[in-house]
Amino acid sequence: MEFREIFPVFNKLSARQQELILNSLITKSVKKGEIIHSANEECSGLLIIKIGQLRAYILSDEGREITVYRLFDRDICLFSASCVIRSVQFDITVSAQKDTELYIIPAKIYKSITEESAAAANFTNELMADRFSEIMWLIEQIMWKSLDRRVAAFLLEETAVENTESLKITHEAIANHLGSSREVITRMLRYFQKEGLVKLSRGQITVTDAEGLRSLA
Amino acid sequence: MEFREIFPVFNKLSARQQELILNSLITKSVKKGEIIHSANEECSGLLIIKIGQLRAYILSDEGREITVYRLFDRDICLFSASCVIRSVQFDITVSAQKDTELYIIPAKIYKSITEESAAAANFTNELMADRFSEIMWLIEQIMWKSLDRRVAAFLLEETAVENTESLKITHEAIANHLGSSREVITRMLRYFQKEGLVKLSRGQITVTDAEGLRSLA
Repeated sequence: MEFREIFPVFNKLSARQQELILNSLITKSVKKGEIIHSANEECSGLLIIKIGQLRAYILSDEGREITVYRLFDRDICLFSASCVIRSVQFDITVSAQKDTELYIIPAKIYKSITEESAAAANFTNELMADRFSEIMWLIEQIMWKSLDRRVAAFLLEETAVENTESLKITHEAIANHLGSSREVITRMLRYFQKEGLVKLSRGQITVTDAEGLRSLA
Repeated sequence: MEFREIFPVFNKLSARQQELILNSLITKSVKKGEIIHSANEECSGLLIIKIGQLRAYILSDEGREITVYRLFDRDICLFSASCVIRSVQFDITVSAQKDTELYIIPAKIYKSITEESAAAANFTNELMADRFSEIMWLIEQIMWKSLDRRVAAFLLEETAVENTESLKITHEAIANHLGSSREVITRMLRYFQKEGLVKLSRGQITVTDAEGLRSLA
């Protein structure tokens, strides 16, 4: 996949800006489970996903997690370049959920280009607004949807993303996505199993009644 | 107060762009309680607060509310101009919490300027990142702070904003800020009263032990 295709604003930049990007562009492979960006690290840059899957999440003081968004093929991770935008005052961790191939535009380069190019700055706006919309959706979910509906929605999303009814995912991982605890998720999944919605086995959750989950979600 | 002072990017615009803004700038007074922007209305524009107080909140299908941020003197409301940014996919309502004096830059004008000016587009970025940071803070509060701590923090914030220990605010209003219900807030406030933290009287909550609230929050 061509870099120009997944980074659409490229064609609106000047020849000099394009050259600057191409000369500094990093290609990187990360393994599933690897942390790509965290609060303690330096601002890595704009991550552009060729292929793979990333998860951006926040951590509580007690080590609890909640996923704020996920990124798939051709998505762009802005907050790994948070130093580009002065007013970003929160810490996000980004880890790979699958083996992932990335392009990285170093933060310094991206910053210098957005400062002079309205097209690039507006592109940053669109990226941020995309994430903002997801976060607002998340708040609505947390505030106004009970956990059973959120677990049902998450299982359906996963079967769509993974394109299989049999999910290899731990109860702990689901808890970390939804900002809950393993015990609570296990209880909920057992209840789902009793209702005939899923079948639980070691390290695997099989959706047996997608329609039922959908009407719950 | 000069418009140029509260809209700092103005000085970075071209003479033509400055003229465009000054010729289209609207001055508006809104009364306490008035709704300035809502999902059903057209995109009003960039709101720049001369003096006053606004509240931006989201609504559930059942009519429950939660405040996502508040705006004070010299703050700028971006999402009332959400049509400027294509990817904004959520509805926010903005209402006046006090009588408020505003400048409004019409959305169409602001859009045309951000499209051509990197300075304006980056300014929009900073505004959005500011709000984003507040929203991330809110998620952390909702996820990882119990309601007693959130109510305590809210009362302390209010006494700071209003510069008085005696708050004229209804239990319903607090519930709408925090995404809770009136009954739950009333129960919590009565518990605070029993603990000697506040004193409740008709339409008024007096903070009697700010230190105690602080250690709770």
